[in-house]
Amino acid sequence: LKVLLYFFILVDLSLALFEEPAVVPLPSWVTMLVELLCLLVFTLRLIHYAKVIPRDKFWKDPKNICIIVILLLTLVDMIIYGALKAANCYGVRWSRVLRPLLLVNVTEGRQLRRAFRSIRNALPQIFYVFLLFMFSVLMFSLMALKLLGKRGLTTIEGAPYFTSYLEIVFDLYVLVTTANSPDVMMPAYNASFVFAIFFILYILINTYIFMSVFLAVVYNNYKKYLKEEVRQLVRAKRHKMVRAFAVLQEQKEEGGEPVVSQASWNQVVHLVQPDISNAHRELLWSVCDDKNQGAIGKVAFVQLADLLNIEVITIKSRPHPLNSLCPAFYQSAPSRLLCRMVQHRAFVIVYDLIILVNAVFIGLDEENPMIANSEWVFLALYMLEILLKLYVFEPRAFFSRHSFWNWFDTIIVVSALVATIVNSAMKSSGGYTSRQILDIVFILRVLRLIRVVDSIKRFRTIINTLIRIGPAILTFGQLIIVVYYIFAMVGMELFKNKVKFYEDTSDPAKAYCGNPLLKGTAFAQLNYCKNNFNNVVSSFILLVELTVVNQCSGFATVTHMSARIFFVIFHIMVVIVIINIFVAFVLEAFFVEYSVDKSDLQTSLEKKIEELELAVAQYVTVTTLGANFCCQPLWTFMTNVSSDIFPCFIARILKGKMSII
Amino acid sequence: LKVLLYFFILVDLSLALFEEPAVVPLPSWVTMLVELLCLLVFTLRLIHYAKVIPRDKFWKDPKNICIIVILLLTLVDMIIYGALKAANCYGVRWSRVLRPLLLVNVTEGRQLRRAFRSIRNALPQIFYVFLLFMFSVLMFSLMALKLLGKRGLTTIEGAPYFTSYLEIVFDLYVLVTTANSPDVMMPAYNASFVFAIFFILYILINTYIFMSVFLAVVYNNYKKYLKEEVRQLVRAKRHKMVRAFAVLQEQKEEGGEPVVSQASWNQVVHLVQPDISNAHRELLWSVCDDKNQGAIGKVAFVQLADLLNIEVITIKSRPHPLNSLCPAFYQSAPSRLLCRMVQHRAFVIVYDLIILVNAVFIGLDEENPMIANSEWVFLALYMLEILLKLYVFEPRAFFSRHSFWNWFDTIIVVSALVATIVNSAMKSSGGYTSRQILDIVFILRVLRLIRVVDSIKRFRTIINTLIRIGPAILTFGQLIIVVYYIFAMVGMELFKNKVKFYEDTSDPAKAYCGNPLLKGTAFAQLNYCKNNFNNVVSSFILLVELTVVNQCSGFATVTHMSARIFFVIFHIMVVIVIINIFVAFVLEAFFVEYSVDKSDLQTSLEKKIEELELAVAQYVTVTTLGANFCCQPLWTFMTNVSSDIFPCFIARILKGKMSII
Repeated sequence: LKVLLYFFILVDLSLALFEEPAVVPLPSWVTMLVELLCLLVFTLRLIHYAKVIPRDKFWKDPKNICIIVILLLTLVDMIIYGALKAANCYGVRWSRVLRPLLLVNVTEGRQLRRAFRSIRNALPQIFYVFLLFMFSVLMFSLMALKLLGKRGLTTIEGAPYFTSYLEIVFDLYVLVTTANSPDVMMPAYNASFVFAIFFILYILINTYIFMSVFLAVVYNNYKKYLKEEVRQLVRAKRHKMVRAFAVLQEQKEEGGEPVVSQASWNQVVHLVQPDISNAHRELLWSVCDDKNQGAIGKVAFVQLADLLNIEVITIKSRPHPLNSLCPAFYQSAPSRLLCRMVQHRAFVIVYDLIILVNAVFIGLDEENPMIANSEWVFLALYMLEILLKLYVFEPRAFFSRHSFWNWFDTIIVVSALVATIVNSAMKSSGGYTSRQILDIVFILRVLRLIRVVDSIKRFRTIINTLIRIGPAILTFGQLIIVVYYIFAMVGMELFKNKVKFYEDTSDPAKAYCGNPLLKGTAFAQLNYCKNNFNNVVSSFILLVELTVVNQCSGFATVTHMSARIFFVIFHIMVVIVIINIFVAFVLEAFFVEYSVDKSDLQTSLEKKIEELELAVAQYVTVTTLGANFCCQPLWTFMTNVSSDIFPCFIARILKGKMSII
Repeated sequence: LKVLLYFFILVDLSLALFEEPAVVPLPSWVTMLVELLCLLVFTLRLIHYAKVIPRDKFWKDPKNICIIVILLLTLVDMIIYGALKAANCYGVRWSRVLRPLLLVNVTEGRQLRRAFRSIRNALPQIFYVFLLFMFSVLMFSLMALKLLGKRGLTTIEGAPYFTSYLEIVFDLYVLVTTANSPDVMMPAYNASFVFAIFFILYILINTYIFMSVFLAVVYNNYKKYLKEEVRQLVRAKRHKMVRAFAVLQEQKEEGGEPVVSQASWNQVVHLVQPDISNAHRELLWSVCDDKNQGAIGKVAFVQLADLLNIEVITIKSRPHPLNSLCPAFYQSAPSRLLCRMVQHRAFVIVYDLIILVNAVFIGLDEENPMIANSEWVFLALYMLEILLKLYVFEPRAFFSRHSFWNWFDTIIVVSALVATIVNSAMKSSGGYTSRQILDIVFILRVLRLIRVVDSIKRFRTIINTLIRIGPAILTFGQLIIVVYYIFAMVGMELFKNKVKFYEDTSDPAKAYCGNPLLKGTAFAQLNYCKNNFNNVVSSFILLVELTVVNQCSGFATVTHMSARIFFVIFHIMVVIVIINIFVAFVLEAFFVEYSVDKSDLQTSLEKKIEELELAVAQYVTVTTLGANFCCQPLWTFMTNVSSDIFPCFIARILKGKMSII
């Protein structure tokens, strides 16, 4: 049901591809029919949801109200648009702006809502800093007007320089993004080098200091919010565990503390995690029941959830299948020598060298037949490596869930082999090489080289942290898509077809992007014509470019100076707020990684494993995955939360399982 | 002596203004004579220093060795250069690069050395992240070469696009600085929008994630280093205080703890801070001697240094001088009404409104006689405000050391008055207006408006933090000047007179900056000719521009592609290392500001003040200056340091008194 809902949201959002201005034009009645279908699905989902939960709770929840309002507004807009269309009037589908908000407000978009809440919490503080920042920009602009306006300087295009106050404010605002540096300063600097001091001061104060203050404010808020959220989660969890205890408890002896017996405990664990091994469960029990009493009290029971969170990898020391099939051969001297060789450090080094040589070969011209054939040699070498490893290590252990790099290697090498074979087959048969397949082959070849990073230990921490923050980046991806979508919809209404891109290079209109207003401007000269709002895809790509460097002179030229407001608002929303939250998130993840510390719970688990090593049939290792996230500074803040429980929460949050941003 | 030394260092550094390539050319024998004089001074200073401290300690100190090596190398270089000059050969004064290192290594440059040490400590970690980052850039470049190199695309200048590996690596490196976005992507994007995804991925990984990781590494190191430094300082201080106690201690009673009597304590305080008031000293004593025993033990004595650090502002409630002169008039009903009016909140609001109206008037055209005359009205109003405040408040309290804004106001208004009068006098007498004086008048007028910020309470915290980090920014200033100076010297040797700026607009060479190689390049078209390395001043300004946006295409064109290495190294040194440390510093200052907490010591001081209010003759307030810096997260790390002492250290560090960066 959840997948279905997301599918329809995706359909609703992707309608923008087919509506005017479209990538693939469809008649408007088709898109409107599909949209009506989507609305119907959302309504049904809402009714279904309303049936499940209590009525008063349903009406109190702002997200449901939000969805109802969005659905109604969309319907009204569709009717108006249809009527206008029928009367051959010009209509704007303004409700398209509301579509991404559905993504935020559906019940399943919990993480996205958290992200929005986090932004909303940071807004007041950001606002005050922003006011001060704007005050500073306005002051500098006033000074620039007074100092430079009357000197009769001209810009490179011959326009008067720094004579209009609003122009100056905008130019200096853009200077903060460093997009027009040093162009905006050149006329003044050419007049006298003293004016450079003005601009240097401006950049120091506004670009370096104020932008750092924004980051500080956002980061501070992010941490505060993270703490608060963790505290609430811990409290809710405790509360639930205590209730569970109340259900399961039994009086062991008269007047004694209520306890939970091992039998009911086992039952609970079996219900919660059916795939847990017996050995693992026994291990956990022995941690809880420290004194071997056959029953545990309230405190030990409450820990259960956290104990289950600590990842324990059970490696069954199974013999190699070849060993079972023909032990005489597998145990022979040459075979054992081979095993020793593959497990040796030199084997890794040799393959790293092969990868480096391969990198050089990739860089060389592949038209050369020698180079082209060398590819087969490398592929053979990589296949050999995988086969050798499979010969030495137990295949199921080699392809276990936690060996990321083994999976990565095998998939890349095998698909490269397949793609290369397909490519050669096509080449030898028809003499024609498909560009797409060749591209894939190249990408796979280059990706193979990444493997070299894993063998250097220093890099592994950084890489692992980066891989770990991956899932949380997806939440940011959703967030940014919501914001981009809204801006793309507005931008398309404002700027569609103002700037055109011509595939045909001979067209004279290409030189000025099909708009005479752009003749001779830097926008046209730099051939930015494809940076336009003519359809959703190019709008999104343009918005990414604006995030990196806010260049919008072209769009102000083709419409009106006030169009700049659109770009300034975009910059404030995306760069000052969202990108800073993203940076804060990455910073926090790395700080946590640097302050490695194990939780008490984990230590006791490891101690138990050491004690029980003989008793436990299988060899068990506790990974640090759940533990090296124990964030010292945050920890100390949480005085009213048991220190045992906290780190696992932080860990889970950072692993993206319940990301709070 | 210290001033003299700094003066000669300044002379030595500013020699670059007069040496080839010079701003003000002087014959080389003059500059060399001055430099010899400077060297002589430094040698004398070193000999003097060697006399003062023990011989083995002198030779163990790396900074002394460093100075000796620098002096010798400079001497050798001067001799070689002189000989070459005499033989009419081309010589390079390579030892000029070493000059700023003198600034680092003199005994007085302690803070600067700390900054360098902090960078050195962070380098290994930065290096590993940098390797990974470069690996990522190289991988993406290889992929770009394979995907885009064979498609026969051309750049806007018609050059082949993405065909040479090294070019791609450089272009993609520059893309990280966002300087060539979106230009570098346009040819590929014009070919197909799919390639935009490649660039978006690149920017996400390298610009956003890796740059954040750099900041995280630098910030983490900065904090670790700050902690370590503070711990050492606290330990050294404790050690000294304990030794002082051993000297002063006396046995009060047989077998009792050794104590320090009030008399010797008073003597110490009097020696350490001669300008401390009696009341203040008595207050401190009463805090130390909590139980009124007339003597204090070791623990209380050790606190002394920290007690003296807490700033206590003594406001003597002196009567207004006018009140003493003619009390009948000052106490009269209209006079008292006036006092009440000035102290009223509305008075502040009225003047804020006046400032805003003034801002509008400044923005309007000052050629208009009405506007020009209004300036006199505003000046009169501001003068009236200051006079009224002086009438109401006691002048010495009004101009006390801590009333930053009162000083600011008075200086700005009085100098604006003087400048305006001078300006009008010149105008009415000769009809000629000096541009410089007019500029000063404008700047003063605009600066006056800043005052409005102070009356909004929300802004005050931010502003105060910014003012407080001011002194530490000076250390960064020195640091950056050392780095800039070295790069300017190297840059001048590499690029001098390759790009020329022509004042004369009619000269045809102006269009290509006097270098035919630049004909038709973007560098010449954008009129960047003044961005050159032809003298020290323009080199420095260019380096600032490079810090903001690393644009160096022009210099690679006029010399050789390998010149880009210079710019990449500059970017790594300045943007990745130094700017990140600066950002970390600003972040830390704001985090500390947000986690306001008073130290125990300060609280007890305030309590004492409340208790003793009647006993102490003067009204005393404890400012939070020493206190609201108590940094909670850092605090908790310092488990082996008394929590009383720590915050004051952090405070003093952040106030720049002993800045650690």
